[in-house]
Amino acid sequence: MARTDKRLGEFELIAKYFAPLAADEPGAFGLKDDAACLRPRPGHDLVVTTDAIVAGIHFYPDDPPDTIARKLLRVNISDLAAKGARPRAYLLTTALPGDVEPRWLAAFARGLRQDQRRYGCMLVGGDTVSTPGPMTLSVTAIGEVAQGAMIERSGAKAGDDVWVTGTIGDAGLGLRILKGMEGGLGRGASALVRRYRVPEPRLEFGLRLVGLAHAGLDVSDGLAADCGHLAEVSRVAVELAAEGVPLSPPAAAAVRTGRATLGDLLTAGDDYELVFAAAPASRARLAALGEATKTRVTRIGRIIEGKGIRVMGADGRPLALARAGFTHF
Amino acid sequence: MARTDKRLGEFELIAKYFAPLAADEPGAFGLKDDAACLRPRPGHDLVVTTDAIVAGIHFYPDDPPDTIARKLLRVNISDLAAKGARPRAYLLTTALPGDVEPRWLAAFARGLRQDQRRYGCMLVGGDTVSTPGPMTLSVTAIGEVAQGAMIERSGAKAGDDVWVTGTIGDAGLGLRILKGMEGGLGRGASALVRRYRVPEPRLEFGLRLVGLAHAGLDVSDGLAADCGHLAEVSRVAVELAAEGVPLSPPAAAAVRTGRATLGDLLTAGDDYELVFAAAPASRARLAALGEATKTRVTRIGRIIEGKGIRVMGADGRPLALARAGFTHF
Repeated sequence: MARTDKRLGEFELIAKYFAPLAADEPGAFGLKDDAACLRPRPGHDLVVTTDAIVAGIHFYPDDPPDTIARKLLRVNISDLAAKGARPRAYLLTTALPGDVEPRWLAAFARGLRQDQRRYGCMLVGGDTVSTPGPMTLSVTAIGEVAQGAMIERSGAKAGDDVWVTGTIGDAGLGLRILKGMEGGLGRGASALVRRYRVPEPRLEFGLRLVGLAHAGLDVSDGLAADCGHLAEVSRVAVELAAEGVPLSPPAAAAVRTGRATLGDLLTAGDDYELVFAAAPASRARLAALGEATKTRVTRIGRIIEGKGIRVMGADGRPLALARAGFTHF
Repeated sequence: MARTDKRLGEFELIAKYFAPLAADEPGAFGLKDDAACLRPRPGHDLVVTTDAIVAGIHFYPDDPPDTIARKLLRVNISDLAAKGARPRAYLLTTALPGDVEPRWLAAFARGLRQDQRRYGCMLVGGDTVSTPGPMTLSVTAIGEVAQGAMIERSGAKAGDDVWVTGTIGDAGLGLRILKGMEGGLGRGASALVRRYRVPEPRLEFGLRLVGLAHAGLDVSDGLAADCGHLAEVSRVAVELAAEGVPLSPPAAAAVRTGRATLGDLLTAGDDYELVFAAAPASRARLAALGEATKTRVTRIGRIIEGKGIRVMGADGRPLALARAGFTHF
């Protein structure tokens, strides 16, 4: 079932675009072996996560290739950040249509190179296959955390505060702009699109959350849905104050002018902020951590006994959310 | 870009079919966390590999789903076996078309369960997305090996013997049968198809090759091509004796009757046998290892100075091979 056309072969493609990304890690063997060999640091656990994206579902085929690469890597780094784990290595699997251009691949590899330097991890392996369907890309990222210190989704306790980094809903508005559903956001528009295309994993903040957060995860399905996941796994309920949810100026303007509801922003997904539960006694330390890492961090609610998630409006009544968040099926 | 139809949702699908495969590994958190947490055994290196398969390219959409699952897992286990690494955990990424049936998923999961028990590894994570294209599946497998002991592709030295486990070319004939290109193989046909669909990783043999093999890999692209990879990375040449390559009775019959050439079998791929270089002083130990693990192991050639691979025919002249082996592009 091999393709026998004249385009770049599998091995040439790996050698040209991907092997240079593995050059600084001896255990990657220049991507010329069957497997990578990594030596874990003594006293550390490994944290392993994987995310896949499909053209037309998770990204647009004509998105800039470097932003596709960076988002793919960053959504995985964001998972590691939420767990308090330092990224170390990643594997890249690409299923590529026959018409992918060398220029596209070069820009894609450039995006990976930029971000693997930024986050301190190295390409160590992967697989490259052809597909008659849409481009499908996945990354498996491997990080390290001190033994037993991984921040899990379970562990939130009644009485904990709920916090979130950054602002919520920007990426969702960015996607609406890309879909042509949203005008009039003026100069804020490109920032929103950028947040959708290239999220900002809260890595330094996440690494220093170890020992402070009782439970946490990153916001990918939407703040409401992800708080629901936290509640479910921790067997508690999450109560959020809608008015406390941090919004960027363009997102706040969209709500103020009725172009989006707060509910839209809480369920839009793709924020890649960290949401976590911590003891009230940690408030001052969390504020200091936010300052030290130049990360906005906002207390948005609390953990109570019960199950599920409730978002309280300014009038003291729960908001009805139209949808729980992003799911793929 | 979420799908909102009535079929099984992403979370239900994971909970129903995949979470049970993760039940025995606490660090998998029932597939309900962002990441898995694994504690490496002290004194061990991690060996990490990944392989992806696409419907219509690497498997037929109507192949039995349990065999698709088993092959997907086994090709990764085979990579670990070739490196001398004991499988420990794997992540599974599935991009599924909308029309995938619950029955299909149940059989697929059953195949995984069967083989993860057999090879002693556990599902610890993954991602499940939808695709408008062909089903695309990938596994990242994680194994462990004593520090510094991984069998690499480099390390073969002039004067080494070249060995291979099992028999070569069966899977390639099996694929020809599935394509309807091959008749008259009689009772051997189903065994050949089975070798194509469900390869047999040489795990016990590979684990005990540590310290004996100077270099090795598994045969996935074809014996000739994979010996070429060994030669390239070790910076030596491989010389094989065509007549010494072990064939199963139906493969030998196919050559004898002219339905296939030896060259076809050496370049067909998908064998998932181990090919490795070892010192002549290890011959007796390798024979004993073959007996102990009930693995046929055959000396098929030698490492010499130079580059590339040469397959010598019975007449003492090199065979011309029509193609080097399977590549995806």
